[in-house]
Amino acid sequence: MDSNELKDVYQTYAKAFSFEKKPKNLYVPVDYIMNLGGKNIRAILLLMAYEMYDDNLDNALPLAHAIELFHNFSLVHDDIMDEALLRRGKTTVHHKYGINTGILSGDVMLIYVYKFLNGVKDDQKRKEILDVFTQTAIEVCEGQQYDVDFEEQDMVSIEDYLLMIKLKTAVLIAAALKIGAIMASAPKDDCQLLYEFGINAGIAFQIQDDLLDTYGAQELIGKKSGGDIVQNKKTILFLSAMQKATVEDQSKLRGIYANCDLLEAEKIDTVTTMFNSYDVKSSVVSRRDEYIVKAYDSLNKLKGKEASKESLKQMAEYLIRREK
Amino acid sequence: MDSNELKDVYQTYAKAFSFEKKPKNLYVPVDYIMNLGGKNIRAILLLMAYEMYDDNLDNALPLAHAIELFHNFSLVHDDIMDEALLRRGKTTVHHKYGINTGILSGDVMLIYVYKFLNGVKDDQKRKEILDVFTQTAIEVCEGQQYDVDFEEQDMVSIEDYLLMIKLKTAVLIAAALKIGAIMASAPKDDCQLLYEFGINAGIAFQIQDDLLDTYGAQELIGKKSGGDIVQNKKTILFLSAMQKATVEDQSKLRGIYANCDLLEAEKIDTVTTMFNSYDVKSSVVSRRDEYIVKAYDSLNKLKGKEASKESLKQMAEYLIRREK
Repeated sequence: MDSNELKDVYQTYAKAFSFEKKPKNLYVPVDYIMNLGGKNIRAILLLMAYEMYDDNLDNALPLAHAIELFHNFSLVHDDIMDEALLRRGKTTVHHKYGINTGILSGDVMLIYVYKFLNGVKDDQKRKEILDVFTQTAIEVCEGQQYDVDFEEQDMVSIEDYLLMIKLKTAVLIAAALKIGAIMASAPKDDCQLLYEFGINAGIAFQIQDDLLDTYGAQELIGKKSGGDIVQNKKTILFLSAMQKATVEDQSKLRGIYANCDLLEAEKIDTVTTMFNSYDVKSSVVSRRDEYIVKAYDSLNKLKGKEASKESLKQMAEYLIRREK
Repeated sequence: MDSNELKDVYQTYAKAFSFEKKPKNLYVPVDYIMNLGGKNIRAILLLMAYEMYDDNLDNALPLAHAIELFHNFSLVHDDIMDEALLRRGKTTVHHKYGINTGILSGDVMLIYVYKFLNGVKDDQKRKEILDVFTQTAIEVCEGQQYDVDFEEQDMVSIEDYLLMIKLKTAVLIAAALKIGAIMASAPKDDCQLLYEFGINAGIAFQIQDDLLDTYGAQELIGKKSGGDIVQNKKTILFLSAMQKATVEDQSKLRGIYANCDLLEAEKIDTVTTMFNSYDVKSSVVSRRDEYIVKAYDSLNKLKGKEASKESLKQMAEYLIRREK
């Protein structure tokens, strides 16, 4: 199946699991975030990896749902920490229902993840999937903590940044693929190759996110976005610029980030001009492409169905080269 | 072993698992709460239930630690929701490290619970323990939500209140006992009896908490405590008074709870006098004792070692009749 078909299959399954339970104040927010129109990328990737070795998706669907629940749990809690007002263009859970509800509804989502994962019938697979997932979930928390820490730190190395996005984003994508493969009794080597594919595609995906924020909309619709710059985010563009810049320009860039009085448009303009003068975009693009090459290397070595490999490649292309 | 010996064994084990890991800002708060001098009641109960059927505690210790981690996770998140400044007489995690850290460090504790539980070697036991625990953890969240909901509700029935404390407190005590018994290969009937013992002892424990807050210190050191009254908590004392009171006294009691201008001592005095005029204390004490009778009924039917039953009974007595 292609990604749209898999998304339909997943969404039909997910709908049957709506949390229409008491206490309402705990579960209504769970249904709210789960129905906020996410792209279900992680669920689709899990199903794709599964389908590479087994056509009957029934056993994979609860696992796909578990991964989506976990992803949405992390969004609910991250949005509290970031004081975000919007998620997918709609009001965030804590902004709509209060911070306490955001905390507690998030907690119960995380516990339900384990309810779904512990439903795997095969003893060996259940144990292995729970191990992979638990290690991943710990790493996602660690990644979020590094992200929080980096905001306070004066300087962050590109290596530290890459570790942070690996933990915060890539490991869950990788785990989704690996869990799908384990469930479908894929060869051990393929499980590991899918994991590595996910890590590298996930890092490229996150680098693309940084690129799009500054350069995406600009090229696409002739208008600058630059939200990351306005929020003084230490993106890979910023860190690359700091690495390449003269001492004078480093302190200029730092000064702009520290200056609260600048108009948004002026700030975006000045910073982007600085990025351009050091050709930051192309160096970040080549870094992204290195991860893409590594991802496809792993993909090409897989022993699974060719058609599924092609779907995975298309999905990766969509993630990495998407324009919004 | 008696409860002090079991506590020592547990604490020695727990010390070896201190979270001296990176990122520090994520894990230091975990060590902080885990070393805040808790009574480790749930860990001790799990070990007691285990020891009733098996003397080698090695297999039970990681499970005892998992239950303590979960209990402390729930305290960290609850303290954020309650805006509590103190826990066990010391600064709460979020007050010391910030709300965001409280959320995230709590999350990683919950995930580590599963890391410990998924370490059980026997497939069947691992599955059963994960099922019992996950159901319990969901119920604890539901109980916390009811507690939050009840604060906003004008009237709460005693039945609803008992359901809330069952979910918020008793199910975890019951699950600790059942998990210990499952791990020790106890007969199925005994696992269930221990669970029921835990539910009833847990509810009695929580009722005793309400009693102590208003009557405990008063009788012990001649001084009123009454923190629950000052905070307008709908304890079982308050709810029993509302149930027994005339319509006139009901609205008087409601008025006192709604009045922010009253001096603390005056408020405690007036409310306690009202409680006394309806003999609320003795009716709550008999209700507590009904749960104690049920708890001991289950305990007496157990097929496990008599010495362990005696330890469990002593522990229950301590919990239910403790004076502070």
